Amino acid sequence: MNPSRPQHAPLSGFAIVDDCLQVGGMALTRLAERVGQTPFYAYDRALLSARVALLRRCLPSEVQLHYAMKANPMPAVVQHLAGLVDGIDVASGGELQVALDTGMAPAHISFAGPGKTDGELRRAIAAGVVLNLESAGEMERAAVIGNALGIAPRVAVRVNPDFELKSSGMKMGGGPKQFGVDAELVPAMLRRMAALELDFHGFHIYCGSQNLKVEALREAHEKTLALALRLAEAAPRAPRLLNIGGGFGIPYFPGEQRLDLESVGINLGQLLPALRARLPQAAIVTELGRYLVGEAGVYVARVIERKVSRGQVFLVTDGGLHHHLAASGNFGQVIRKNYPVAIGNRMQGGPRETASVVGPLCTPLDLLADQMDLAQAGAGDLVVVFQSGAYGLSASPAAFLGHPAALEVLV
Amino acid sequence: MNPSRPQHAPLSGFAIVDDCLQVGGMALTRLAERVGQTPFYAYDRALLSARVALLRRCLPSEVQLHYAMKANPMPAVVQHLAGLVDGIDVASGGELQVALDTGMAPAHISFAGPGKTDGELRRAIAAGVVLNLESAGEMERAAVIGNALGIAPRVAVRVNPDFELKSSGMKMGGGPKQFGVDAELVPAMLRRMAALELDFHGFHIYCGSQNLKVEALREAHEKTLALALRLAEAAPRAPRLLNIGGGFGIPYFPGEQRLDLESVGINLGQLLPALRARLPQAAIVTELGRYLVGEAGVYVARVIERKVSRGQVFLVTDGGLHHHLAASGNFGQVIRKNYPVAIGNRMQGGPRETASVVGPLCTPLDLLADQMDLAQAGAGDLVVVFQSGAYGLSASPAAFLGHPAALEVLV
Repeated sequence: MNPSRPQHAPLSGFAIVDDCLQVGGMALTRLAERVGQTPFYAYDRALLSARVALLRRCLPSEVQLHYAMKANPMPAVVQHLAGLVDGIDVASGGELQVALDTGMAPAHISFAGPGKTDGELRRAIAAGVVLNLESAGEMERAAVIGNALGIAPRVAVRVNPDFELKSSGMKMGGGPKQFGVDAELVPAMLRRMAALELDFHGFHIYCGSQNLKVEALREAHEKTLALALRLAEAAPRAPRLLNIGGGFGIPYFPGEQRLDLESVGINLGQLLPALRARLPQAAIVTELGRYLVGEAGVYVARVIERKVSRGQVFLVTDGGLHHHLAASGNFGQVIRKNYPVAIGNRMQGGPRETASVVGPLCTPLDLLADQMDLAQAGAGDLVVVFQSGAYGLSASPAAFLGHPAALEVLV
Repeated sequence: MNPSRPQHAPLSGFAIVDDCLQVGGMALTRLAERVGQTPFYAYDRALLSARVALLRRCLPSEVQLHYAMKANPMPAVVQHLAGLVDGIDVASGGELQVALDTGMAPAHISFAGPGKTDGELRRAIAAGVVLNLESAGEMERAAVIGNALGIAPRVAVRVNPDFELKSSGMKMGGGPKQFGVDAELVPAMLRRMAALELDFHGFHIYCGSQNLKVEALREAHEKTLALALRLAEAAPRAPRLLNIGGGFGIPYFPGEQRLDLESVGINLGQLLPALRARLPQAAIVTELGRYLVGEAGVYVARVIERKVSRGQVFLVTDGGLHHHLAASGNFGQVIRKNYPVAIGNRMQGGPRETASVVGPLCTPLDLLADQMDLAQAGAGDLVVVFQSGAYGLSASPAAFLGHPAALEVLV
């Protein structure tokens, strides 16, 4: 290992006993037997709980936590988090069903998405969840459906802000976007809303995801709160809800540093009193997906063969991009970088070597680790991809090439 | 439309009647009613047949055609092609099952893949298909399983050539690779093979995919045949099979020109006699996936809303990257480019405009067309993504965000 090259941020969440990774208090080798097959995803229940506790400790106590279940829709994970957080955000009728099944109160479930169908609107209105309206057109459709059902739909306006979140992995607002209503169009939409039978709750303002910079988040929060105050003046009633989005990132790649959550919380604490003075009834919600679940999960595959081709070592595993597209570098990355990867049953190992981890697919895209420093490994060993709790299995082309599905366990 | 900007290659396969796209001889609007939902993929049976006929016409008659079903594993498509081609190539135990179900003779099915499990080898050997061995280790495992089953496995050696295919979209050989056996290691492997109970069939030499350049393919064929002749000298018996791969590309992006198949065929015809003289018993197989099915398929989604944000038009549809990852630019593309996209029920339309087509997902990655020239469209209109017959639905993260699955029809 060359110490001058950028390293992955230390992963402190999982214990190592006798050189073997522990997940959910169990040795990975035993867990693999318990699961009964590889590949699988394992999510650590205690790490999920610890992450919620960390957020409760660092963020102002009045900030409510929502889980954006798109990050990991496994029902057991959603159920576990439903008992810990204050609400769930869903992105489709399918996710709505899972969220409702947890027993979460519908008023604490919100539904965002730029392409809600009439069928989805109908289900959401019947359920009584909060619709984050993405356009004036969607507002009209919701009103018509509400009238037909005899229910005043709970609605918030998702705003496409007039600023961007700097340094975010993915920009969700600012400029022309399919998401939300352009900030400058919101007042007219709110005036129109007053004439419709809609139960206005407030605003959803979200500008970007996967941010590791305290300063960028502080600026985003400051601008978000200012925009909310400005928009509230045009609202048909005082907002009861202000969803300030999420965007907290986790370190994936060499050189990335963990987000300083404590500072994010302190900054937010300084901004809230001014808002509180003017919008005393508004619940402040932060909506987190990746930050809640991303670091609590690992993807585990078994080495089928160790192969040397022209001086390079390849560990060919039974898992790959069909289960973990993001780790292969094909989900929004411009330049492929390695996720943190290790040999789970030889975390340090004996001799180490530079090796690539590939999957069973007939495509060079099927690459889980490109020439990383790993313990020397062979057939039967377990490759672990860390930081895999979010946007893993559900964001992968599971049917590609007809290989067996990966299992998921919460331990 | 700016005529000086690179354009998509003309798509001549689908007729247009009354400004509406025809698929399988049916108006797209009617087909959507027949399917009963959007989004869906539609594959045109006549275009599949026509593509096979074109290949038969252009390639030397002795070249056998195999379908690499990884490109599109829909059982009806595989079944249709099974009646037209000479063999099927599979990439997993799952694909093997579909291929066998078509009735294709096992001796004309081959199985490639760098990470075959013991279970897959056992199934393939029991079925009697040809294993494309990817390593010396896999050869040993196949021999052990063959002994246990009392069957001499049919095997070919997949070779990682000592050259690369220039201008290919994806390099599958040359340099250090997980695919195949390095050419320089093949003679030793063949000597070892002579001591095992394996039924040697020949070689599989494949160096890259999605190539649009006649010259590059000519050079690849020349080097492939020369390498095969060299390797044959070390074989335990005269090769009966030489799979020269495929790699024929189709035009996806603006500026790309259709492959001149006729010239490819003429060049190949000039190379074959020398091979034939020395390996008279070897069947020459070309293995095509994308080239057989890619242009015969369209992906169809319905516009849910037309939205204007800060001067840009967005057509928000019920389909997106969860069904068509490649069209969103997230499957191996370094720089995102637009697939050919049109409004299927207004191919020319009345007024035209620059619009982006996005899906229903809460991510900016969910982009099917970025500011393209399209007929002006609104809710209810049908967006068509062409060149979608290969690496479409099966290569997409269908479960992402819990939206309904896309259907597939062969018409």
